[in-house]
Amino acid sequence: MDTTRTIDLNADLGESFGQWRLGDDAGMLALVTSANVACGFHAGDPRTLLDTCEGAVRHGVSIGAQVGYHDLAGFGRRFIDVAPDDLLADVLYQLAALDGLARTCGGRVSYLKPHGALYNTVVHHEEQADAVVQAVVRYSGDTPLPVLGLPGSVFLARAEEAGLPVVREAFADRAYTPTGTLVSRREPDAVLHDPQQIAARVVRLVTTGELVAVDGSTLAVQADSICLHGDTPGAVEMARQVRAALDDAGVAVRAFTP
Amino acid sequence: MDTTRTIDLNADLGESFGQWRLGDDAGMLALVTSANVACGFHAGDPRTLLDTCEGAVRHGVSIGAQVGYHDLAGFGRRFIDVAPDDLLADVLYQLAALDGLARTCGGRVSYLKPHGALYNTVVHHEEQADAVVQAVVRYSGDTPLPVLGLPGSVFLARAEEAGLPVVREAFADRAYTPTGTLVSRREPDAVLHDPQQIAARVVRLVTTGELVAVDGSTLAVQADSICLHGDTPGAVEMARQVRAALDDAGVAVRAFTP
Amino acid sequence: MDTTRTIDLNADLGESFGQWRLGDDAGMLALVTSANVACGFHAGDPRTLLDTCEGAVRHGVSIGAQVGYHDLAGFGRRFIDVAPDDLLADVLYQLAALDGLARTCGGRVSYLKPHGALYNTVVHHEEQADAVVQAVVRYSGDTPLPVLGLPGSVFLARAEEAGLPVVREAFADRAYTPTGTLVSRREPDAVLHDPQQIAARVVRLVTTGELVAVDGSTLAVQADSICLHGDTPGAVEMARQVRAALDDAGVAVRAFTP
Amino acid sequence: MDTTRTIDLNADLGESFGQWRLGDDAGMLALVTSANVACGFHAGDPRTLLDTCEGAVRHGVSIGAQVGYHDLAGFGRRFIDVAPDDLLADVLYQLAALDGLARTCGGRVSYLKPHGALYNTVVHHEEQADAVVQAVVRYSGDTPLPVLGLPGSVFLARAEEAGLPVVREAFADRAYTPTGTLVSRREPDAVLHDPQQIAARVVRLVTTGELVAVDGSTLAVQADSICLHGDTPGAVEMARQVRAALDDAGVAVRAFTP
Repeated sequence: MDTTRTIDLNADLGESFGQWRLGDDAGMLALVTSANVACGFHAGDPRTLLDTCEGAVRHGVSIGAQVGYHDLAGFGRRFIDVAPDDLLADVLYQLAALDGLARTCGGRVSYLKPHGALYNTVVHHEEQADAVVQAVVRYSGDTPLPVLGLPGSVFLARAEEAGLPVVREAFADRAYTPTGTLVSRREPDAVLHDPQQIAARVVRLVTTGELVAVDGSTLAVQADSICLHGDTPGAVEMARQVRAALDDAGVAVRAFTP
Repeated sequence: MDTTRTIDLNADLGESFGQWRLGDDAGMLALVTSANVACGFHAGDPRTLLDTCEGAVRHGVSIGAQVGYHDLAGFGRRFIDVAPDDLLADVLYQLAALDGLARTCGGRVSYLKPHGALYNTVVHHEEQADAVVQAVVRYSGDTPLPVLGLPGSVFLARAEEAGLPVVREAFADRAYTPTGTLVSRREPDAVLHDPQQIAARVVRLVTTGELVAVDGSTLAVQADSICLHGDTPGAVEMARQVRAALDDAGVAVRAFTP
Repeated sequence: MDTTRTIDLNADLGESFGQWRLGDDAGMLALVTSANVACGFHAGDPRTLLDTCEGAVRHGVSIGAQVGYHDLAGFGRRFIDVAPDDLLADVLYQLAALDGLARTCGGRVSYLKPHGALYNTVVHHEEQADAVVQAVVRYSGDTPLPVLGLPGSVFLARAEEAGLPVVREAFADRAYTPTGTLVSRREPDAVLHDPQQIAARVVRLVTTGELVAVDGSTLAVQADSICLHGDTPGAVEMARQVRAALDDAGVAVRAFTP
Repeated sequence: MDTTRTIDLNADLGESFGQWRLGDDAGMLALVTSANVACGFHAGDPRTLLDTCEGAVRHGVSIGAQVGYHDLAGFGRRFIDVAPDDLLADVLYQLAALDGLARTCGGRVSYLKPHGALYNTVVHHEEQADAVVQAVVRYSGDTPLPVLGLPGSVFLARAEEAGLPVVREAFADRAYTPTGTLVSRREPDAVLHDPQQIAARVVRLVTTGELVAVDGSTLAVQADSICLHGDTPGAVEMARQVRAALDDAGVAVRAFTP
């Protein structure tokens, strides 16, 4: 009997655009097991995406399509009231483009994660959640593609109903409210910064399913994957400490995809 | 022994963008055998592309990826000095996106045709021609994807060297110089407008391999496909007359792809 | 004492983009007194905007900056949750660009009207309404620039508080609810199509301040300007009939700007 | 009699875009006398441009419109074969937008400098050079706006013929050929990196009009402004050393504009 606990580490990558660089993709690819690769709508020119897919394949990192609103100026972080049929087509287009690039590198897209404002919107917006789910169903064909999202979201509920494997995500460096939602980024304590504290928090979450909320209460959180931010200063160092702490705790870090 | 002559008719489709409509795609899909579908870089939002692929599949029309420069404001009609590695990635991205959309409609991309300024550039520009060819080779995998282009172009020469099937194209409504190149659009007689004359010209070309140049001399032109423009007033009527004239002449109009 | 009633007629113009044409700008410029010219964010490439400004000056038509969300794919018709400071800068940029173009044609921007989803949003969204108003105030300098909007909107209220002249607008071809709001475009009877009926409706509104709502009740509506749509089939013919009916009724059609 | 030598220092600023940051604008504004501010076509979202104009006014730095091709993905560094009438309108639009933003900050655009591939193109491309010059003439009205460019370029020649003040520029960190052109960036020694060497080179150029070319020969170069690159690592430190060396040499660093 294998009692080893396992966990996946994911991060957003491929978010440079032309002359503008963002994040240390090479550094993160050495540490995570799943790469949420941008698809060109909120970030990621084709050359960057191709290079990122090549890097992911080289590091044995699973490639996910990080689809977003078509909004370079807003980096996909602003809600757009896209009609569901348009959103479905936008998601399919991004998914297809990235999957095609990944396949020419010997990989493939093995899951989908919405980005930024789309991620937050499909937590509760039924029409947009359905549109994203239908795009994944339509693209999947016979082999349902997993989706990564927030536990308790409309998005994961609809995906499950539609027969898609769902992957529940927790955030390494974000504070949680006592009811298990994320503390808004507008609050002063929304984001944690101390790598050691973050690493300890992740280990406790993975090994016990517990997380301490902002008010000191203990939460039960089920997570199949931990999101590490890749575009902040010190991101690689934080990822390194999280990974090391998980190794020390005997947790096997591996992709949720086969 | 089958002595029936056959020819393919192709047209540019899917070139609307959001609120802006261009051409009568439904009308043209009933008449052509190959649809050069835009891929989002010079024209074609994802919803339009998806609808166009669905229409093509419904009409049994072959889908080609009409890849272009990333230039909505210029509709892909302005040369851009893109670095070859960037162009390769841009072409791969477009090809993959459209192929993925087509596959969700029960079709697939079965050839590639460069659009506008890219089409004209790869007639002579070796680095850009190579980049497009390498993108197709890389995307093709084991089944080489045919490319559609101008006979005598660097593009078709490189494609052939790379093992890709090449499809030679002639233009129904464009005047030719005595040496077999197209009369520049800046010249007054560059474009023909009389549907009957155009239809007769196409029939002669297909059945005899001959075309009359602007100076009255007779040219030998080998064409596997005839390009019909879809975005001009009267485009559908012209296509109807060309198709009827070919039917009357006993020419089988069918796609060059199986 | 001058007892002549006067009214302004406004229409959205300059909404083509590159190869894509929209509306009959030349036809409308001969009939309206105020041109809401796009500014490049939801529509309108610089060449189109320059040509439209030249046309407006030639026809003695007042030029307004029709500012919108930065969303070509959505034609500015989708709400975007832009941060107020970003929206303020976006509006300033558009206003300045169009004003500069207009001045090189011997004209200038003499008012501002939000477009599409931004128009609808600032009816009730306080932060975005404030951002647009602050942009106009900041651009105005010593000479406050008028703004065109919906009577009763937060936008016009804030503009008035900020010392901007406000111009109240009614819609020639839109149905009204008994409370004076527009019937949603999702309803079947939202848009009127009969040019004669529309012309009669506009004359009654201008001469009596009355409008018949969808339920047959009579509304009091105060309007300084009537919006005519320029991008629908028959738009020019409808504008012609409205203008002729106003002439017949002895109403002076002239711009609200001096 | 004032025998003090004076020189202007210019740098490209405002080249961030949304989430993507580029260069240390605040650091450079404390050191240069002229800021070539992007205008939104190759870089620079409106919020960034507004902030950059505010910063320039605060530091007493002259604001120039750094106009470019409409190509975010290529950062304006790829030649685009834009038709002259379109280019004229594109330049006018950018110039007007930035000037309007600058005026709301208490400044104004006081010169124009083409960016990237447009800068290189108008060195020799007569139609595009004319288009840029005509845009400046048209925008200038009664007060001709100076243009900054390469000595010997078609652009400066045409600008002079058109009555525009021309400002000749030399590059602090670029190697020169014996004939006075820049060594291509494809060559290994195209760019100098040692701040001390660069500072000494600038002082010699400004005080004696001499520059040592790559082959060791001495060139005569007349420069009214020295371009410092703002987006490279160490850019601010290099600018500091150049400015300090000029101060030590008794050269007055000040804008060429009044």
